[in-house]
Amino acid sequence: MAPTLLNQDNHPGLARIPPWVLAKCSPKAIETIKKVYDWVENECIPAEPIVKAQVAAKKWRTPPYIKELRKRAKAQGLFNLFLPRTFKESPGLTNLEYACCAEIMGRCYWAPMTMNCHAPETGNIELLAKFCNEAQKKKWLQPLLDGETSSAYSMTEPDVASSDATNINCRITRDGDTLVINGRKLYGNAAWNEDLGFYILMGCSDPENPNPWARHTTVIVPKDTPGLKMVRNLTIMNMDWAPEGHGEYVYENVRIPAENIILGEGRAFEIAQGRLGPGRIHHCMRLLGQSERAYELALIRAIDERKKPRGKRIADFDSNIERIADMRMELDAMRLVTMNAADTMDQFGNKAGRYAIAQSKIMVPLAAAKIIDECMQMFGGQGLTQHTPLPELWTYARFVRVADGPDAAHRHQVGRDQIKTAKGFKERHERYQNRFEELGPKWGVEPEYIRGDPVHLL
Amino acid sequence: MAPTLLNQDNHPGLARIPPWVLAKCSPKAIETIKKVYDWVENECIPAEPIVKAQVAAKKWRTPPYIKELRKRAKAQGLFNLFLPRTFKESPGLTNLEYACCAEIMGRCYWAPMTMNCHAPETGNIELLAKFCNEAQKKKWLQPLLDGETSSAYSMTEPDVASSDATNINCRITRDGDTLVINGRKLYGNAAWNEDLGFYILMGCSDPENPNPWARHTTVIVPKDTPGLKMVRNLTIMNMDWAPEGHGEYVYENVRIPAENIILGEGRAFEIAQGRLGPGRIHHCMRLLGQSERAYELALIRAIDERKKPRGKRIADFDSNIERIADMRMELDAMRLVTMNAADTMDQFGNKAGRYAIAQSKIMVPLAAAKIIDECMQMFGGQGLTQHTPLPELWTYARFVRVADGPDAAHRHQVGRDQIKTAKGFKERHERYQNRFEELGPKWGVEPEYIRGDPVHLL
Amino acid sequence: MAPTLLNQDNHPGLARIPPWVLAKCSPKAIETIKKVYDWVENECIPAEPIVKAQVAAKKWRTPPYIKELRKRAKAQGLFNLFLPRTFKESPGLTNLEYACCAEIMGRCYWAPMTMNCHAPETGNIELLAKFCNEAQKKKWLQPLLDGETSSAYSMTEPDVASSDATNINCRITRDGDTLVINGRKLYGNAAWNEDLGFYILMGCSDPENPNPWARHTTVIVPKDTPGLKMVRNLTIMNMDWAPEGHGEYVYENVRIPAENIILGEGRAFEIAQGRLGPGRIHHCMRLLGQSERAYELALIRAIDERKKPRGKRIADFDSNIERIADMRMELDAMRLVTMNAADTMDQFGNKAGRYAIAQSKIMVPLAAAKIIDECMQMFGGQGLTQHTPLPELWTYARFVRVADGPDAAHRHQVGRDQIKTAKGFKERHERYQNRFEELGPKWGVEPEYIRGDPVHLL
Amino acid sequence: MAPTLLNQDNHPGLARIPPWVLAKCSPKAIETIKKVYDWVENECIPAEPIVKAQVAAKKWRTPPYIKELRKRAKAQGLFNLFLPRTFKESPGLTNLEYACCAEIMGRCYWAPMTMNCHAPETGNIELLAKFCNEAQKKKWLQPLLDGETSSAYSMTEPDVASSDATNINCRITRDGDTLVINGRKLYGNAAWNEDLGFYILMGCSDPENPNPWARHTTVIVPKDTPGLKMVRNLTIMNMDWAPEGHGEYVYENVRIPAENIILGEGRAFEIAQGRLGPGRIHHCMRLLGQSERAYELALIRAIDERKKPRGKRIADFDSNIERIADMRMELDAMRLVTMNAADTMDQFGNKAGRYAIAQSKIMVPLAAAKIIDECMQMFGGQGLTQHTPLPELWTYARFVRVADGPDAAHRHQVGRDQIKTAKGFKERHERYQNRFEELGPKWGVEPEYIRGDPVHLL
Repeated sequence: MAPTLLNQDNHPGLARIPPWVLAKCSPKAIETIKKVYDWVENECIPAEPIVKAQVAAKKWRTPPYIKELRKRAKAQGLFNLFLPRTFKESPGLTNLEYACCAEIMGRCYWAPMTMNCHAPETGNIELLAKFCNEAQKKKWLQPLLDGETSSAYSMTEPDVASSDATNINCRITRDGDTLVINGRKLYGNAAWNEDLGFYILMGCSDPENPNPWARHTTVIVPKDTPGLKMVRNLTIMNMDWAPEGHGEYVYENVRIPAENIILGEGRAFEIAQGRLGPGRIHHCMRLLGQSERAYELALIRAIDERKKPRGKRIADFDSNIERIADMRMELDAMRLVTMNAADTMDQFGNKAGRYAIAQSKIMVPLAAAKIIDECMQMFGGQGLTQHTPLPELWTYARFVRVADGPDAAHRHQVGRDQIKTAKGFKERHERYQNRFEELGPKWGVEPEYIRGDPVHLL
Repeated sequence: MAPTLLNQDNHPGLARIPPWVLAKCSPKAIETIKKVYDWVENECIPAEPIVKAQVAAKKWRTPPYIKELRKRAKAQGLFNLFLPRTFKESPGLTNLEYACCAEIMGRCYWAPMTMNCHAPETGNIELLAKFCNEAQKKKWLQPLLDGETSSAYSMTEPDVASSDATNINCRITRDGDTLVINGRKLYGNAAWNEDLGFYILMGCSDPENPNPWARHTTVIVPKDTPGLKMVRNLTIMNMDWAPEGHGEYVYENVRIPAENIILGEGRAFEIAQGRLGPGRIHHCMRLLGQSERAYELALIRAIDERKKPRGKRIADFDSNIERIADMRMELDAMRLVTMNAADTMDQFGNKAGRYAIAQSKIMVPLAAAKIIDECMQMFGGQGLTQHTPLPELWTYARFVRVADGPDAAHRHQVGRDQIKTAKGFKERHERYQNRFEELGPKWGVEPEYIRGDPVHLL
Repeated sequence: MAPTLLNQDNHPGLARIPPWVLAKCSPKAIETIKKVYDWVENECIPAEPIVKAQVAAKKWRTPPYIKELRKRAKAQGLFNLFLPRTFKESPGLTNLEYACCAEIMGRCYWAPMTMNCHAPETGNIELLAKFCNEAQKKKWLQPLLDGETSSAYSMTEPDVASSDATNINCRITRDGDTLVINGRKLYGNAAWNEDLGFYILMGCSDPENPNPWARHTTVIVPKDTPGLKMVRNLTIMNMDWAPEGHGEYVYENVRIPAENIILGEGRAFEIAQGRLGPGRIHHCMRLLGQSERAYELALIRAIDERKKPRGKRIADFDSNIERIADMRMELDAMRLVTMNAADTMDQFGNKAGRYAIAQSKIMVPLAAAKIIDECMQMFGGQGLTQHTPLPELWTYARFVRVADGPDAAHRHQVGRDQIKTAKGFKERHERYQNRFEELGPKWGVEPEYIRGDPVHLL
Repeated sequence: MAPTLLNQDNHPGLARIPPWVLAKCSPKAIETIKKVYDWVENECIPAEPIVKAQVAAKKWRTPPYIKELRKRAKAQGLFNLFLPRTFKESPGLTNLEYACCAEIMGRCYWAPMTMNCHAPETGNIELLAKFCNEAQKKKWLQPLLDGETSSAYSMTEPDVASSDATNINCRITRDGDTLVINGRKLYGNAAWNEDLGFYILMGCSDPENPNPWARHTTVIVPKDTPGLKMVRNLTIMNMDWAPEGHGEYVYENVRIPAENIILGEGRAFEIAQGRLGPGRIHHCMRLLGQSERAYELALIRAIDERKKPRGKRIADFDSNIERIADMRMELDAMRLVTMNAADTMDQFGNKAGRYAIAQSKIMVPLAAAKIIDECMQMFGGQGLTQHTPLPELWTYARFVRVADGPDAAHRHQVGRDQIKTAKGFKERHERYQNRFEELGPKWGVEPEYIRGDPVHLL
């Protein structure tokens, strides 16, 4: 048994789960995790060349193989696993239990699609389920839950620093019962994807409102609305990312009915806040599985008997031995960070989990990209070619560092929150000082001992 | 409430405990953690100048203030908290629960001494309790448990690479019922410390034994045995580390009775293995508290209104905001790593915890030294002076990187274990290939699609 | 004047040249550097969309725009600038002077092609000029020097660790005056490139030779030789790298005349050694310019008034200010490393420059990839899309880390060479000891002072 | 010959000098470098135990051995080598030539003292020579040049962020022909050092002056002036740094004659600017030699036959081989950075060298501390004890990171200067755009090709 692999019944799907996490998983969840594992191992990873061939044959649609699997996964109840237990459609997993599933799904880039657990659908479904009225749910949410259509979250803009969402300036103006949209948007699924149904767009409807958090509105824009033009598909590190893609859009007098407003005018920030839940670390969960896959490839390469520079296998170089150890440890630490964030949300709610979520979002993609990069390097030149899936794995990890705002923005937020704790520490250290003033004289140590050192006792 | 601080009753001693850990702590343990917190906050940290003055006055003895606290802690049951539950003397904490206590103790360098939870005592007590016979226990263990004497673990040698213990060559030869010891040893408490009682020495008693793991014997050497000479006290980064110190010793025909052999001749490696338990990460637990203390000082400095380069407080520089965030996140990740190791031992035993222990040992001291170094830097020049406790905190963290063998040795061990897992991954990827050969043709994707790419499908 | 920009006449093409380098450049070289600068600024960078459009229209040929520029550059004498002064065709630049030119060329990926200074041509031309006989030179070298055809260096193999070239096992067998080649090769220009003329292939002709350095032969294989099949174009981080590409080849009974042997049978390592000259750091020189370009883009983004997260420009965040400083300093340090390697070759020859070459090869691509990655991050999500050239710039920098063997291989070589110096240091420190034994007694410091510390005096 | 060691006559003192530097050294300078080398090798390093013993015997005075060497060095003309050629007392070395000497001196901590080339004397001498009137020079400068007394630069304050010198608030008030000083100061030689003569103090004489750069005055304060009290010696990472030490001072109504004002009231910033010359990188030069010494020790340890974990020498572990390579390359890169800064000052003056100086100040101490730390780690536990000089070497390198303001302050300055260059880059890229608008249509590439991508062409 490998030293890091500890679990009760030796099912390989449980192998990387930390003991404390396993102990928190319900028996039913454990069954689900095993099923997800078998699904990904047997139906997904081995079929990657099939999907690749289907995408090569016709890019901008969900490959038939994935559609087929989706039907079967749904029939088996392996669908929408991510849905939090607060939703009636939820299959009942905690965030922590889902994290175990999502990591496994992450081993194959498109495996989450087969289980309707892929981005941006998971975040969008959460949002719609939370904020839509019943009519909207029926019209827009249900098809997503059924895996029959696909949606995009349309927030980023090319012309402003939209990682600070108060800057969003795509204009939404009212014309009676109609809303008129003008602006430019980036990312969030390509219109070329024939399975895309609609956009969830955040725009500025009341720019003069003195409250900057009440200026924006979130609406649903059906894909084929006139005036909405996709300028180009955005490549990410040179990949077109078909079939989802990342569109660059121009909205020119795009008209939608006012009934497509979610929650109410000026309430986009309430919605955006509501989206700040588990969906923000699904990426991280999947990146763990993805990094494990890269790691396994690196180890396989390391023991390749045909690859012996200076007569030794890659695995026989002490430097590689240490590199492998570092990757392993870093990856396992990142799992603990992610799992802790999931568990914190389970225990104390999404809001209380804010710090732990940010911690995952910042640390995991950075670590994953670094680990995968190191794995590529172990393959030498081949590591960067299509001979391995590593370039795709790396690209996705790299992308996640900016996908939800650059990591510096999140780091900044964490830092600002931390600085608010400083005052409490100052008071604590003043209490030390006061207490010393009681204790010192009893032991013959005069306060003068530290006089003049305002910092010393701290 | 600070964003990372989540706990049920807002007791500050529970503030940094991750939710999953808190959920695993028994009510009794939670009471103990709170008591430890109050003890350290009220009796230890504020009294640091007292202990400093007492050491300055007379170096090589346990300072009277600590002796006094030790009595009181014992009376309150805050003693030997580290002892695993398998020991009858144990106060009953799990490793995980103890980790919460040890972190708090780590906030003050000598606080663990007041609770008889300091190195090397904790490891030595575990060892003696596990391997001594009853007579030995009565003679050597009991006084340690009572906090009445102090011991040293004498393993490292200046003349060999003793991090690989098979190299140890201090000679133990038999002369009837007497053992004669000759060699040189480093570290492990200074003989100058008047409270030191004895050494637990690992030496080579049977150098010709074909089994390299059966050549060594562990014995107890009373401090004042003739022939045992302390050459000098070893400074660690220029600190003399009084009162414990780190002696450099010469053994010249040191004679001890054979009854001082622990477990049996040639069985030193069994003992060394037995020492590979929780004691190996007590350092890490304490380093967490120590790093938190440095972190708090850095934050206090950051909001110091008197310190405004270019008109802004240290905390107002975005670069420091990001640095603080990075420290915070790294430190919290290290806590998760340490706690997971403790919990793994609790769940599956020390042996199963080997990897997680190594992970802590490698990652935590490195991270702690880096964090404390960054904290020093926030103080500018003052950070390196005695105006702050940071230089001592850093030195201890740095020392731990080599204290139990350099981290590269542990990393190497982890890496070698990992490479053993490679074969399993190779088989897994062969199964992917085989499965693809079933699936591919059904979907019209010929095996040729990947022919010639031995690595591709992996 | 920007603080790092120092030069005599303020020509922007000289702005980044360190004073000591500028002082070594001849007036004629300075004229050439300026011309190269103007060429790249006016004819290349602004025309990037033209070349992009031409590649999009027809991938696998040199774009007409580049062909046109090539003619003009040749007419102006801006051709083959890299050729060392030992070659009669050389335009007379020292390696150091050429480094200044190459950095500027590196600002536009294809600019070197317009001046016939691109890889792998530069290395191949050096090789052919050095080792071919007159007939071969006329047939193969001259068209390369004239920029009329293109060549590939065919060394890497998929099935062995070919970074250690003794492992190369593509078989070359003799059949009278004909050589028969069987094996697989990777990289080195795609056969699809209609401008490719021939391969310089290293294969194993005498596998049983007891001398492992005499088993290999280098030959010229014309592109259309029957039996030579390109299996696929290798993508590098998902880029097809048209028009050069990177082919994966199978050689099945490929027959070439024995007169295509370069230098002689079994002499491939002599040739490989001969290729270990300036050509090995042309990449590094170009990466400097490439990184400067990324840096400039990052700075432009940083002052973009439209991009204000939290109301501040990117450039107004202290954290970005420090990041920019770090990039700047790292990049300038890398220039010094590269320039020093070029100058060392100029002063002491290629062989003496071995260490400095390796230092550049290892440090520069790593630093360049890191800097460009940081620049991407400053752009947020857009940084990874085709909105900026950064993904291409990064990919090239990343590729160079493996292009000539993974950097670990070079690092290993440097380390092994360094360890050979240890003995000298040991002797030096023994001399210190001896000298102390003279001096100590004179000053009343007895040798005993250090007795027992074998390491101390060192 | 070791691969990095290239020089004309194989004198070991020239071994590490890069070719371009050696080529710039005059024959006379080369002779001086060799003499310095022989001096340090024969008189200094081997005598370290003597100086250690003398300091142990009596701390706060220049050890007699050093005094003796100082006489001899002076007699041989190995004195004040650092003095720039603009000073009449200068021995005539360029900054670049002196850098070669200073690196060698750095191999032994106190070697520079023997040649009157130590901090803070070098900076103070420069300052006094530049700004004092003749009477002052005679009284204060001459004894320093003669090595007969010692001085302190008294600028840092405990109560403000004095790395931004406009914050300095030690008060200087006038009382007729007398100045009265009140305040607290840190660092800059201990009053306990019996060889200390005077302080060069920067204080605030005109706090209400609207020009913040005209509020401060620099004065000379003789050591024994009444009211000047040394509170304690500041330890640096627990070292007392005897005999110079670092005092913490209180000035209470310290009275000095107005004739002790340097340059004039309110002109302290002119003086501070004038101090921003070569003296700012003397640390860096010495750190190179210091790091080389640590490196040599690590290599000696690496080949120690007695130290074989797992049966291999430290040098036989590939991971250490790579570490050694990394140290070597980093150290050599740092030398290039430092030498380039020295040469830039030589060529273009101190002001033009501002960036290059800052680059050295930031990069070199960080790299040196990292390298020395790695060297310690190669020694295992012993690396941190007095068995090696590594702890002292590391401490000094670490100290330099804050000695002249924390490196973040310098980095910030560099970054701010760089951001001023952004506008120029923006204009350059606009020129690209304009030029493209000329070229594009000629080649049938419409401007629309890039329309909508404001960043694309950049």
